[in-house]
Amino acid sequence: MKNIFQMPYEIAYYDTDMTGKMTLEAMIRVAILVSEKQSTALFRDARYLKPLNLGWVITQYDLEVTRYPKTFEKLVFYTQATSWNKFFCYRDFWLQDEAGTRIATIHSTFVLMDLTSRKIKTVTEEIIAPFGGVKENKIYRGEKLPPLMNASGQDYRVRYFDLDGNQHVNNAKYFNWLLDPLEKDFLKGHEVKKAYVRFDKEVMYGESIISQHEFLEENVTLHQIKTAGNLCAEAKIWWQEI
Amino acid sequence: MKNIFQMPYEIAYYDTDMTGKMTLEAMIRVAILVSEKQSTALFRDARYLKPLNLGWVITQYDLEVTRYPKTFEKLVFYTQATSWNKFFCYRDFWLQDEAGTRIATIHSTFVLMDLTSRKIKTVTEEIIAPFGGVKENKIYRGEKLPPLMNASGQDYRVRYFDLDGNQHVNNAKYFNWLLDPLEKDFLKGHEVKKAYVRFDKEVMYGESIISQHEFLEENVTLHQIKTAGNLCAEAKIWWQEI
Repeated sequence: MKNIFQMPYEIAYYDTDMTGKMTLEAMIRVAILVSEKQSTALFRDARYLKPLNLGWVITQYDLEVTRYPKTFEKLVFYTQATSWNKFFCYRDFWLQDEAGTRIATIHSTFVLMDLTSRKIKTVTEEIIAPFGGVKENKIYRGEKLPPLMNASGQDYRVRYFDLDGNQHVNNAKYFNWLLDPLEKDFLKGHEVKKAYVRFDKEVMYGESIISQHEFLEENVTLHQIKTAGNLCAEAKIWWQEI
Repeated sequence: MKNIFQMPYEIAYYDTDMTGKMTLEAMIRVAILVSEKQSTALFRDARYLKPLNLGWVITQYDLEVTRYPKTFEKLVFYTQATSWNKFFCYRDFWLQDEAGTRIATIHSTFVLMDLTSRKIKTVTEEIIAPFGGVKENKIYRGEKLPPLMNASGQDYRVRYFDLDGNQHVNNAKYFNWLLDPLEKDFLKGHEVKKAYVRFDKEVMYGESIISQHEFLEENVTLHQIKTAGNLCAEAKIWWQEI
């Protein structure tokens, strides 16, 4: 496999929760950092995209974690742009521990957004070719999630520091909104084993969201994040008791 | 000066706000990471303190930032344990940019907390001597801040991921609570030049806080963070228009 990019990373105390295990939010933001490092190495980072008034936006994660690393652990984060078509770019991430064991895999979908019109733009060879993915017309559609029937909800107001360089709430922040409503007693005793997250609509400063969830079956939850009337993200999460 | 510990650090996109400048929260958490790295090098990190049922807690920051570093910048973070007495340990941090210019200085006060009783414990030679600070009886008391007369307030509910290994809200999270209520229009146009923050009482899971602030004069704000009836933190912040 070509164009695999890697970065060693030592888990910092601030990447972990109160039990000392890496949070999903931290895993996602370090993964995205690795893809940014690859972009920098290929002269395709924000300094290339900003003058084109473009930014990368993530529309989907499909992830599986077999073991959560702990503070002080030294990992290697890997990433590879796998394929792309007119609108979607697919990128994988995986984490390897010191024993050489893969402990997490993240499949992701990126799109290019015009920073003024907020519309998705077509991907060009010039932008994407250096990453070495395969150009193919295959579109990966995620699982269609059922509607929530009996959800409980928790409100979150967008904070200034939730925003990123694309002037909207950074995708990693959604993991806090998705998981926090399950509350400490549950979160201390359960780990996310698998998650499918789809981002439908960006969330902006001044908005409040409601994060709703319900149990589809034991240890499987369905989630929706909504602003007034709009579905912004949905997720299905498979939990494991610890 | 002896026992100065340093760590190179490259500013990641997630350390910055929507304008690409490092946030105070990120600056503080990376600074504390450097002190943890020094603790590890001296065999005095959490793996040494946890069996003693102790944790370091920060009670005070007195900081000055002359320039906020931006995404991609490579800095060196320095730290030095300067002095200590029966209850208080004083530690400085400073950040140097690639040109060798010091761009920020943080004076901090640490105490040792018993993780069960939540009481402050006396500092022992065995715990602190390896850091090489001077033992002296001098206690640095911060500025006494006036009461708020006409403050506006914003509520924040403690989230599960606000908690750290000491099972309470991590001190860096307070910077989000302190600054967010000033809102985007102000925050985009102003930088924290100097800040004095005192932590009076820990904030636990299940609590909500109110973050109050008022302008003492143009570009100087006073802040209080309170749970029901209790003052948990107060701050004075000097701003600079940008």
